[in-house]
Amino acid sequence: MDRLKQQLAFLTEIDRMKTVYRRNVVIDRSRQEDDAAHSWHMAMFALVLAEYAPETLDMLTVLKLCLVHDLVEVYAGDTFCYDAAGNLDKAERERQAADRLFALLPAEQGNEYRTLWEEFDAPSTPEGWFAAAIDRLQPFILNFHTDGHTWHLAPVKRADLLRRLDPIRTGIPALWPDVLKMVDEAIENGYLPAEKEGTTK
Amino acid sequence: MDRLKQQLAFLTEIDRMKTVYRRNVVIDRSRQEDDAAHSWHMAMFALVLAEYAPETLDMLTVLKLCLVHDLVEVYAGDTFCYDAAGNLDKAERERQAADRLFALLPAEQGNEYRTLWEEFDAPSTPEGWFAAAIDRLQPFILNFHTDGHTWHLAPVKRADLLRRLDPIRTGIPALWPDVLKMVDEAIENGYLPAEKEGTTK
Repeated sequence: MDRLKQQLAFLTEIDRMKTVYRRNVVIDRSRQEDDAAHSWHMAMFALVLAEYAPETLDMLTVLKLCLVHDLVEVYAGDTFCYDAAGNLDKAERERQAADRLFALLPAEQGNEYRTLWEEFDAPSTPEGWFAAAIDRLQPFILNFHTDGHTWHLAPVKRADLLRRLDPIRTGIPALWPDVLKMVDEAIENGYLPAEKEGTTK
Repeated sequence: MDRLKQQLAFLTEIDRMKTVYRRNVVIDRSRQEDDAAHSWHMAMFALVLAEYAPETLDMLTVLKLCLVHDLVEVYAGDTFCYDAAGNLDKAERERQAADRLFALLPAEQGNEYRTLWEEFDAPSTPEGWFAAAIDRLQPFILNFHTDGHTWHLAPVKRADLLRRLDPIRTGIPALWPDVLKMVDEAIENGYLPAEKEGTTK
């Protein structure tokens, strides 16, 4: 049964998502978060916060987007979002990874997941925008609860962070004021070390 | 905005899923698998293998079941499936964990996730049976690709393993013959150390 073999080969290969480590840590700080756990957590964020979307969403598509959005990183690796150099060739590395990974599946399934990945990467639907927003909100909440762990690595300024969070303004505008309040609170608490009190924000 | 605060408190609390470690390892054997990564991988198995379900499923419900099925373990911990003693009080520990965890959410959301968890735990729908089957298939594939890592811990015999895999026979009968073939191959390869060649299977 060739079809099943292809599908199991794909499901076995993507096990690597569990050892692609991101820059942020889990909230108890015992380890870096991995792509598989991040994707699961994103899907949970999407489910719990769906009511704040600007319109009724196809939640099955949203969940699929969350589950597959980082799959290409099994070959391309995680690129630190505040690393300008690493981001220069990110698109090309990920395109090559997509070619290789989705080819493991039967053609029509490979095409479906590739299309989902492309929609996430350059959203053109409310579902794509919502998933992209959740992809920014989830690490924001984790960094907020770890004294700004990742924000110390760059170090990140308010303007950098707001640029990073901007998809939330577009994808889930109802949450944007709350996010801005949390950014202010993060700065007050010293989670963004580049933003000293008294400097121009 | 109390409602949002409750939802974010829940989403923060379930971050603990990433540090609830299971007995099986990830395929590169660099670490034990955690509940968050397991839940993500299950959801991917469910998506990719949906076509083998005995009838058309509501895939949004299936994905929700995969995503929430282990949440109570943030308080109750993972109970080794081959540990008879640990399983004696598992139901009561998990019920108490469910009371505590789902109470973090606004009532109607807490009720929705609790109902999903109960459906997973005692399936009464094709979606519940399918998710329960996938929960057995995913670690089976991981153990198969790690020379039977978990099966050495108990140690597990063919009859134990078949009992453990039995929900696949019910939930995805189309895959049962392939699973039986892989069990035979696992025994031939020595992945089940309790099954020596020549003993009665």
